[in-house]
Amino acid sequence: MQKVAKKNAFYAQSGGVTAVINATACGVIETARQHRDKIGKVYAGHNGIIGALTEELIDTSKESTKTIAALRHTPSGAFGSCRYKLKSLEENRAEYERLIEVFKAHNIGYFFYNGGGDSADTCLKVSQLSQTMGYPISAIHVPKTVDNDLPFTDNCPGFGSVAKYVAVSTKEAAMDVASMCETSTKVFILEVMGRHAGWIAAASALAQEQVGDAPHIILFPEIAFDKQKFLKRVKQTVNKYGYCVVVASEGAQYKDGTFIADAGSKDAFGHTQLGGVAPTLATMVKQELGYKYHWAVADYLQRAGRHIASATDVEQAYAVGQKAVEYALQGKNAVMPAIVRKPGKRYRWTIEEAPLDKIANVEKMMPRNYISRDGFHITDAGREYLQPLIQGEDYPPYKNGVPQYAKLKKVMVDKKLKKSFKV
Amino acid sequence: MQKVAKKNAFYAQSGGVTAVINATACGVIETARQHRDKIGKVYAGHNGIIGALTEELIDTSKESTKTIAALRHTPSGAFGSCRYKLKSLEENRAEYERLIEVFKAHNIGYFFYNGGGDSADTCLKVSQLSQTMGYPISAIHVPKTVDNDLPFTDNCPGFGSVAKYVAVSTKEAAMDVASMCETSTKVFILEVMGRHAGWIAAASALAQEQVGDAPHIILFPEIAFDKQKFLKRVKQTVNKYGYCVVVASEGAQYKDGTFIADAGSKDAFGHTQLGGVAPTLATMVKQELGYKYHWAVADYLQRAGRHIASATDVEQAYAVGQKAVEYALQGKNAVMPAIVRKPGKRYRWTIEEAPLDKIANVEKMMPRNYISRDGFHITDAGREYLQPLIQGEDYPPYKNGVPQYAKLKKVMVDKKLKKSFKV
Repeated sequence: MQKVAKKNAFYAQSGGVTAVINATACGVIETARQHRDKIGKVYAGHNGIIGALTEELIDTSKESTKTIAALRHTPSGAFGSCRYKLKSLEENRAEYERLIEVFKAHNIGYFFYNGGGDSADTCLKVSQLSQTMGYPISAIHVPKTVDNDLPFTDNCPGFGSVAKYVAVSTKEAAMDVASMCETSTKVFILEVMGRHAGWIAAASALAQEQVGDAPHIILFPEIAFDKQKFLKRVKQTVNKYGYCVVVASEGAQYKDGTFIADAGSKDAFGHTQLGGVAPTLATMVKQELGYKYHWAVADYLQRAGRHIASATDVEQAYAVGQKAVEYALQGKNAVMPAIVRKPGKRYRWTIEEAPLDKIANVEKMMPRNYISRDGFHITDAGREYLQPLIQGEDYPPYKNGVPQYAKLKKVMVDKKLKKSFKV
Repeated sequence: MQKVAKKNAFYAQSGGVTAVINATACGVIETARQHRDKIGKVYAGHNGIIGALTEELIDTSKESTKTIAALRHTPSGAFGSCRYKLKSLEENRAEYERLIEVFKAHNIGYFFYNGGGDSADTCLKVSQLSQTMGYPISAIHVPKTVDNDLPFTDNCPGFGSVAKYVAVSTKEAAMDVASMCETSTKVFILEVMGRHAGWIAAASALAQEQVGDAPHIILFPEIAFDKQKFLKRVKQTVNKYGYCVVVASEGAQYKDGTFIADAGSKDAFGHTQLGGVAPTLATMVKQELGYKYHWAVADYLQRAGRHIASATDVEQAYAVGQKAVEYALQGKNAVMPAIVRKPGKRYRWTIEEAPLDKIANVEKMMPRNYISRDGFHITDAGREYLQPLIQGEDYPPYKNGVPQYAKLKKVMVDKKLKKSFKV
């Protein structure tokens, strides 16, 4: 009887990276290593799916146990990620066929795609086309996105850590403002990520422990920005508490869909304000209310901030990676390990499979009942949902005062295909 | 024989607050409490020196041992700080006389003023005038400033923590950029504090572990900005490493002294309010080189970031507070506890007294030999100086996923003077 060669696995990171996507990679690789009888090597795409298209595969078997373990506490995409959305099957079937060819050439039978909604779609198509092409691949989508917009899953790995970063930063910066507001800054504006959904901005509310604590105003993309209403609330807040802390989603917009950031406002001296919701709002506050302001734009700092990651998030990120491999070994296909919140007062969760065809290209928005009626804050329901996700600290090791993150050797697998592929 | 009533102490926080100024307050109050035979109560100025002028004194004896201990891990100014510079003695002698009156009314014999260069000057004058007025006060200046610009002391409490925040943030954000630069952001710009001196920007260099690591370019206020030279370096870096991380001081300026970005407004001291170097540079890079960019402005997040404080900084902040009280008890006057670096390879330090008349209004600049010849980075000498200051982590306790910082009762002392004072 001929022995069937065991299949290798392919893992790729997709889209914007997070503080914990490597914890998922760690979960995938460590679990695969526990099943050497069934899974050969784990190849990682160099720069995500582009690595598969160009046959640039990183041989993770060349990395030590210690290095792979260190991925758990390492932010960013250790193998490289990319913003590269495969076109539809109709538009560019060649891309999908190329993927299957590369997988076939390297004896890859498992495809783990770690990303958001777009990659769920790609993952599904790879699964489908591989069947059509007679080289069936077990394709498992592994959730990741700071945007927290995937359906089925309670939350998306990566979100809890950016949420914690934003809550902690809001709390600390607000204390700074509060301690000096009598003679200095009265209004502080923190701009956070969130182009379509206000999940990240909402998380800043977790900084608030009692009435009057910051943040005082949260601006969500979901709620049309009303300049006069906003300014009135800023003024009321300064009158009441002496200062006002605003947290604004980058995607905050006017009723007509114009982003606040694109409104093209000018400062007091007629200079055009350079990008950013925060500086635009700050200028507005200065011009209309005359308050001294400061603003911050956290940008990549928030999603890369592994030093202040949520332990819950790290655990879940690892668990979805681990579960993805277990699903593959169970012969599952076109599914995603989803985090499921168990009923009860204490936050408990488990991982369950969700069908990819119901996930691909579906965006989960923030429920309206998580946002307060006046549109400037979250409700108790919103807080109840968010609170558990930032629980626990999971500090990386330090050396010379800075975190020690995994450094990979990134040994490339020899190419086997004659044709190169241009992306 | 009549018993001489023991004197009370007055403590005030001045100017921009830091992640560790409350650790100094903790050092002052805990040490004073150990000497109840000699020091009565410690009163803290509500909102800094303004509290002394308006007779708004917080009775710290009403705070529990636990609350005072928690100040050690609490950022911002727990008693309130202010940007209020006393005028010169000639211009406004009444202000100094008022201070002495208030001190006399509340039997205050010790004045601990926790701030930067301006407050060292105030502290010295209070000491001098109190003698003239026949109510001698033992005035001790306690160093604090993220600007790291006080003379005599090896470094200024507050700086080490902002330095650590910036080094860690630069490292993390750079990893994010590196992992996606093939298809996404190529240039990332982080704007940090530093109006006159590039100490904070310099600290970002500690993120670098090997050649090629970020930051690739540091812009110091000390080095005239040359647009063409900067753009050339950005391009070279992107060509060589695939991406480029720039850390820019808010005070970075052209040869003629024009700030790269100038927000227009001025603060209470007449300093131009800065902010916006990062977006200005980003626009420049986009226009001239066409690279996709991202930028972040850390603003208050960096100096309030107690969650990532340097343990060395916390220890030193506490030690200068402790030593200030010891100096006062030894009858010293018009001095400042300064951190002194001991010779040797391993970083060891001690606290020694420095005379206030040599400190007041003297600004310590970054030595030119700490900046590389090309002006875009630091030298080994710079690294050797900076490295020990960010050593060690000192995490605050957490509850519900966010740090638990001290909450004071702030019980006010009954006013004794009939005249009120307008600041």
